[in-house]
This record gives sequence, structure tokens and C-alpha cells, in this order.
Amino acid sequence: METIRVTVWGEFRHEKKNPQVAALYPDGMHETIAAALRADPRFSVRTATQDAPEHGLSEAVLANTDVLTWWGHIAHDEVEDAVVARVQARVLDGMGLIVLHSGHFSKIFKALMGTTCNLKWREAGERERIWVLEPSHPIAEGLGEYFELPQEEMYGERFDIPAPETLVLMSWFKGGEVFRSGCCYTRGKGRIFYFRPGHETYPTYHDANVQRVIANAVRWAAQPPSPKVIFGNYKPLETLE
Amino acid sequence: METIRVTVWGEFRHEKKNPQVAALYPDGMHETIAAALRADPRFSVRTATQDAPEHGLSEAVLANTDVLTWWGHIAHDEVEDAVVARVQARVLDGMGLIVLHSGHFSKIFKALMGTTCNLKWREAGERERIWVLEPSHPIAEGLGEYFELPQEEMYGERFDIPAPETLVLMSWFKGGEVFRSGCCYTRGKGRIFYFRPGHETYPTYHDANVQRVIANAVRWAAQPPSPKVIFGNYKPLETLE
Amino acid sequence: METIRVTVWGEFRHEKKNPQVAALYPDGMHETIAAALRADPRFSVRTATQDAPEHGLSEAVLANTDVLTWWGHIAHDEVEDAVVARVQARVLDGMGLIVLHSGHFSKIFKALMGTTCNLKWREAGERERIWVLEPSHPIAEGLGEYFELPQEEMYGERFDIPAPETLVLMSWFKGGEVFRSGCCYTRGKGRIFYFRPGHETYPTYHDANVQRVIANAVRWAAQPPSPKVIFGNYKPLETLE
Amino acid sequence: METIRVTVWGEFRHEKKNPQVAALYPDGMHETIAAALRADPRFSVRTATQDAPEHGLSEAVLANTDVLTWWGHIAHDEVEDAVVARVQARVLDGMGLIVLHSGHFSKIFKALMGTTCNLKWREAGERERIWVLEPSHPIAEGLGEYFELPQEEMYGERFDIPAPETLVLMSWFKGGEVFRSGCCYTRGKGRIFYFRPGHETYPTYHDANVQRVIANAVRWAAQPPSPKVIFGNYKPLETLE
Repeated sequence: METIRVTVWGEFRHEKKNPQVAALYPDGMHETIAAALRADPRFSVRTATQDAPEHGLSEAVLANTDVLTWWGHIAHDEVEDAVVARVQARVLDGMGLIVLHSGHFSKIFKALMGTTCNLKWREAGERERIWVLEPSHPIAEGLGEYFELPQEEMYGERFDIPAPETLVLMSWFKGGEVFRSGCCYTRGKGRIFYFRPGHETYPTYHDANVQRVIANAVRWAAQPPSPKVIFGNYKPLETLE
Repeated sequence: METIRVTVWGEFRHEKKNPQVAALYPDGMHETIAAALRADPRFSVRTATQDAPEHGLSEAVLANTDVLTWWGHIAHDEVEDAVVARVQARVLDGMGLIVLHSGHFSKIFKALMGTTCNLKWREAGERERIWVLEPSHPIAEGLGEYFELPQEEMYGERFDIPAPETLVLMSWFKGGEVFRSGCCYTRGKGRIFYFRPGHETYPTYHDANVQRVIANAVRWAAQPPSPKVIFGNYKPLETLE
Repeated sequence: METIRVTVWGEFRHEKKNPQVAALYPDGMHETIAAALRADPRFSVRTATQDAPEHGLSEAVLANTDVLTWWGHIAHDEVEDAVVARVQARVLDGMGLIVLHSGHFSKIFKALMGTTCNLKWREAGERERIWVLEPSHPIAEGLGEYFELPQEEMYGERFDIPAPETLVLMSWFKGGEVFRSGCCYTRGKGRIFYFRPGHETYPTYHDANVQRVIANAVRWAAQPPSPKVIFGNYKPLETLE
Repeated sequence: METIRVTVWGEFRHEKKNPQVAALYPDGMHETIAAALRADPRFSVRTATQDAPEHGLSEAVLANTDVLTWWGHIAHDEVEDAVVARVQARVLDGMGLIVLHSGHFSKIFKALMGTTCNLKWREAGERERIWVLEPSHPIAEGLGEYFELPQEEMYGERFDIPAPETLVLMSWFKGGEVFRSGCCYTRGKGRIFYFRPGHETYPTYHDANVQRVIANAVRWAAQPPSPKVIFGNYKPLETLE
């Protein structure tokens, strides 16, 4: 696969209402994430936001997306079910999906996981240390043994998700909690990665390690087309004689 | 857990329309399944069918069900979304769920898996040999290395499910296909088992090995209440000093 | 399975040399662990120690053991390879194995895992908080969302083990590390549980939650005999016609 | 990673003794496997055989090998333990390992799996159909839904291995058996793939699909160097204040 076509999706509401968030992300978190991805010449990056028609996720956009990243928070319920179904079908057909931070409660993540995706949280600007559990996993490429974010929102276990197929990253919080912060899944032909950090009031998406994890995850989740699978009534019995 | 409260749910449509099915299951497949389960005095078994009010799955019934078994086929779409959501919530809260045969396409299984749950099929009354891949798993207790069904509908891979947490049984079909026939999952606090055999035109649910697998699966899926998990805003930071 | 026959194995060296350890465990750590298990009338508990003939693990002892617990530290290399091979064979044949703390570096655990089982450590008597990731797992039964040990040796990731089949417990350390503290495996017909806490200079095995986890793990790892598997040359081809 | 350095290891005994095998593989199975791999210009391929000094697997050879493939059968016991330990250490440090057919009983595979790796077998030249369970896995790239080998030795379940992290391929045999034929593992930093076909009396390694699977597996198992992991006594506690 030469070029990886990435669509960075953002809810883009906090940035318009909260001056603190706007100061950190003047063009929206999605543009910061997209700009970092554009540093890799293999990536062709576009952005889409919730308030665009069809949330910016038309059939055509999805058909031309190899990997979609998703950040949402206060407007999950406003995402139309038809678009969620369209994204889910595209993931099952092979598109990668990177779910960021509060996207754990998005309709698309819950639909793909089948669980509540609930968790503990605390906004206390506390230190997060993210440990690499699987140093040879492609999503950990170029990281050290851990990296730190000086201020983040805490997310704590129990995180109500299916056990990840691969658990790459684990967070330690100063306040006493742990969290499965980097979780890999396969659903249908698609690869899904959940990545924890990214509360809107902190400069998390400007952090070089966070940007590296997202870029690694995009490369991991992008896949060449796989062979068409035949479903339904199947008759090759006679060929066996 | 002394008594395991089992609800055997049946679509109960084929039996009323197709004399061949009615001959095999005069009171419905669900009653045959339930009768076999009643051989274990630890089980308290009731049945419920799709055409009862609320599909027989009121809040009260589910609250008093430790394990639910599910067989449906031609009327999946008629199951109300509100009941599906109720069953899903109860599974995530700890109820076991045994999904049988064509139940792979039920709304509840698809909602819990997040995938299409599609597969190949062929109605040719061909021999199925079901191999035990994990002989020490509780669901395999009392089985031999394999058991056979002389006539069954074929289901073939690719079966579009998340990779099972434990793959206990694997089917071989005379016509040349294989199928993941016994698949274990945990979702939320609930345990889920998919078990392949059970086409309505064959006497599958009268088979002693099939009955044994279902009973084993009920015992495996039944769990004592687990501690309440605290979700949401969480403040014990100060206790750490 | 009515009675579960447990053998609690201890290296029993620190207790004889270090007065601090002897004060905590006058009869050895293994006797403290065994005494706690005896509170369950379903358990029939014996102990064995490294300096007994055959390390206390004769063929007869193993044949009459359903679950073996293992604590070793400074004398791993003195455990005879023939005894390790005997224990491994018995695990693969269905005996449960609970590996405690520094047992991560035992010959038997490394042989069953195939990896170095290496990790970080620090003896600083720091606070450990052990979180339950899977609240409905039998090994978590009766625990709260977490429990704490006021003073323990730190173990930190990367823990060089195969990814656990089920990751039940995760440790948080005051000093900034996380660790996979409760790890389930199946090898052959046997179930294996690794449980982190238990440095000899702390009263960890007197802790009620630690005792509960070990007892839960013994119940989880004990299994009824499973059917004999046929290996080798296999000829039933003709039966298929 | 630009070039992938592959070492194809062969026992190379049958080819010298059995004219039927020699006719199929005049230069040895390893040379047939190597020749097929050389079709990919990214691969730099050498071969090594059991009867060379150090079995052809010196420290220098292993240090310059990204992926090792292994075929052995009648002389597993003659492989020196020191070489096995060296290969195991190199896998745990990141080298890929592709274990072929009767290599299931090699010392290196058993050491990495921790189990007996036993199975059923039958030499009856019967038809094998290998199904793709995970069509989007890189090892399945370019395959159809299944491929067939007209004549192969049967291997049947129970295959006594740890449950694969990913089960990519599943075999169906005309005689009534199934087998987990394509099994992925991670051990340490290394990736391991077991691939079933390849009995010496059949032209299996001349088959285009078999060659494709091996090449795909080499690409999947080759990894860039991952960061050094610090093990042992670890002191950064003070940095947290």
C-alpha cells in the first residue's frame, strides 16, 4: 500500500465554546492531529467534523478512507445512527479505526465492542505515565519504555470493554489508578485501536509521543484489500468427488 | 450458586408451519431443549417464546434468569429493539447467554459481537463431525474426542465473528467445510457461548451429546453475583497521601 | 469435584536465615499459605519444601495433587530438572499451578511460558494497589474493586511473559510502575495462575485479600479429569464411508 | 526494514535416504523453500542444515537473521540443546520463527510453547483443504477462501499447543479430521508462526499457495528493532515528586 488515506474526524464543539480549548487548538483538535500525521509523506490526510453534512462521512469519503480517527465527547448522541451504521460497515469491510480518549463513549465504538465502554474518570490535571507492555508491537515503535503526560484527565478501571486482542499500553495515574490505554481489536476485516489520552483542556495532541502513537496506529490499522469472502448459500459439495 | 435459573427461548414458528419440524419437535424445539436441561436437578428451567408479550422476556423474567438460551431463524427482524437492548444490558450485568445455530443472525448476538456474524450454509443433510479442541474446558466435560451428527445443515467459514476468547469445538463437514462451532466470549460481566448445530429439520436437539454441550454451557455461563463496579466521576485521590 | 487436593510448595530458605522473615513466618511462608487454605473445608492441603527428598514432589505426591502452589526465590537453580519435567508433565495432564511472586523466575514457570519471565523490581516497601480488571472472573470473587498492600516490593513492566489468556489483576505502585499481577493461562489440560504479591520481608500472605485470591485461584485451577486424548498414528478413515 | 534476512533451516536427511523424497527435492526441501522466497527481492535468503557445524546456526548467523524457518522430523533429538537455547534467546530478542509441518515436535517449538505439541497423524495421501479463517490477516494476503493440496499426510486435533493468539488457517481432511494449520504467537519480542503442510513424500513445497503463505509469514514475522527493555533493579522512584 503506497499511500494511506486518513480521515481525521473531530466533534469540534469544545474548541468553539471554551476559550481554554480554543487557545490550545485554535483550528480544532482534529487539525492538530491531522497536521502531525502529515509529517509522514505516506499519509494523505483530510479532516471531517460533526457539524458538516452527513458529519463529513459520506459514502464517498468512507470509500476513500483507509483509516479513520475519531474524537467526540459532548455530542455523541447527535451522531446519526445511519452514519454510525455506515462507518461500522466500512470498518467490517477493512477500514481501520482509531478511537481517541472520550470517543470510548461514541456510538461507533460501543456498536463495535458490544459493551457499555464505561469507566471511571477524574478531572484533576494529574500526571499520567503510559507504559509499553508489548515493546515489539508496531504501535510501540520508537517509544521508550514509557512516556509521561504532566497533566491529563484520569480514566480508571474497570473499563467495560471486551478483553483486547493485544494490550499494548497501560496507564499509571498519580492518583492511584491504572487503565488499559492502548487496545487492539479486529472486527470483520477491520483493525481498531483505542488510545486513551486527549482531554480537550490539555495540550495532549501536541505531545510528540502521543503523535507518534497515533501515526503508528494508523500504519498498523491500514491494510491492503483482502479477498472477497463468499457468504450465504454455498454449493461446491460436488467438487469433492 | 445452588440453583441455576435457565430461560430457554424459542422463536417457535417453524414448528407451527412445517409438519416435518412439528414431527420432530411437537411442543417446539425450546421444550425439547428445556426437557433435557431439567435432567440436572440444579437447573430451574422455564421457556419463553417470541410471540408472547415482550417476547416472554420482561424485566422480571430477565432479573430472575441466570442463563438464557436463544434459538431464532426466520423472524429475527420481528424481535423488538427494546427487548434486545434489555437482554444485552442483562448480559453485560452478568447473565449467561447461549446462542444456538441460526441464532448467529439474531439481533442480540450481532449487538454483542459488533460484526455481521455472516457465514456460508448449505442444506444438504450431510454428516457433521464436531471435534473437541480444548478437552479440559468445562463445556467439553463428558464428551469424547469428537461426536457426530449424521445429518445437519452445513455452516462454513469465514464466520464473521470476533476471534473467540476460547475456541472449544470445531466442525468438519462431509462436503469439505470447517466451522468454529463452540465459541466462548465474555462481554461485560456476562459469559456468552455460541453453539452451531440445530437446524430445525433434523433431530439435533434430541442428540445426547448436543444436550450435554448445552447443559455444560449453562453451567459454565452461570456465575455468582460479582461486586458492583463504580463508573463515572471518581474522587479518592486524597486518600493516597 | 468434591475435595480439592492442594500441595503448597515452599523454598523455605529465607525463613531459616533471615530473622525478619522468620518473625513474620515462623513456620515458613508455605505454612501460612496452607493454613489460610485450610479454612475452606473443600480443600485437603499438604505442604512440601525444596530441601525434602525429590523436593517433596514425588510421582505419588503429584499424582494426588489437584493444584500446586509454588513460591521460590534464591534457590531456583537448585531445583532438579527431573522434578521440573515431572511437574510440567503433570500440569499438562491437568494439575493446576499457582505461581507466586518471585516464582516468576522458577524453572517450572519459565518452562511452561517459554520466555525469560524477566521484569523490573525495587525493594522500597512502597504501597501497591491491585485493581480488578475482570470483576466477574472467579478469581476476583469477593474482592472489591481494588485492594491495597501498604508495603511491598515493586515489580514493573515489561514483564516478559506470553500475553495472558485472561488478565484479571493489575498493580499500581506508588513509585510510578504498573504490573500484570494476576495472569491466567491454559497449558495442555492444566490451568496456571501467576499472582504477583509476596515478598518475604512483608506480611503479605497474612493479608485477607491475598489469601482470598489464592483460594479463588485454587478453585479455578482445579478441574475434573478430562477425557483421554488420542495422539499418534490414527486410523479411523474407513469409518466415514 | 528494507531487506529481510531469512535463514531456511532443513534437517536434510530424508532427501539423502529416500529416493522418493530425493526425486521431489533433489537439493533438499530447504533449497526449494529458499528458491521460492528468493522471488521476493526484499528477501536475502540463505540456507542451513542440521549436519553442518553448530547445525549451521552459529551466533553470527542468528545475529544476521531476521526470520528463521524450521523443518525437521526424524532427528529432532540430535539437535544440540545449546543451539536450541541460542535460537530461543534470539526469538525472544525479536527474530521471527516459522515452524513447518513436523517441526511441531522440534525442541525449539516445544521450548517456546511449553507444551507437548502432540497431535494425531495418518499417512494416507489424502486431500487437505486449508480454509482461511481470518481473511484480512497479512499471512492470508493473496490467498483465496481456501486452497487444496491433493495429497498430504493428515494431522488431527487435539493439537496440544497453547491457544494461538491468532488462528489464521484451518485444515479439513478427507478422512474426517480438522487441524489448526496456521497459528500465530508472540514470545518475547519475537513472532512465531506454525504452518502445517509439508510431508516429505509430497510436492507440497512446490505448491504456489504454500509458498505464498511462507513468504507472507516471513514478512509478518520480520520486525524492526524494538527499544531495549530494562530488566532488574529499577530506581526512578525519586523522579516522581
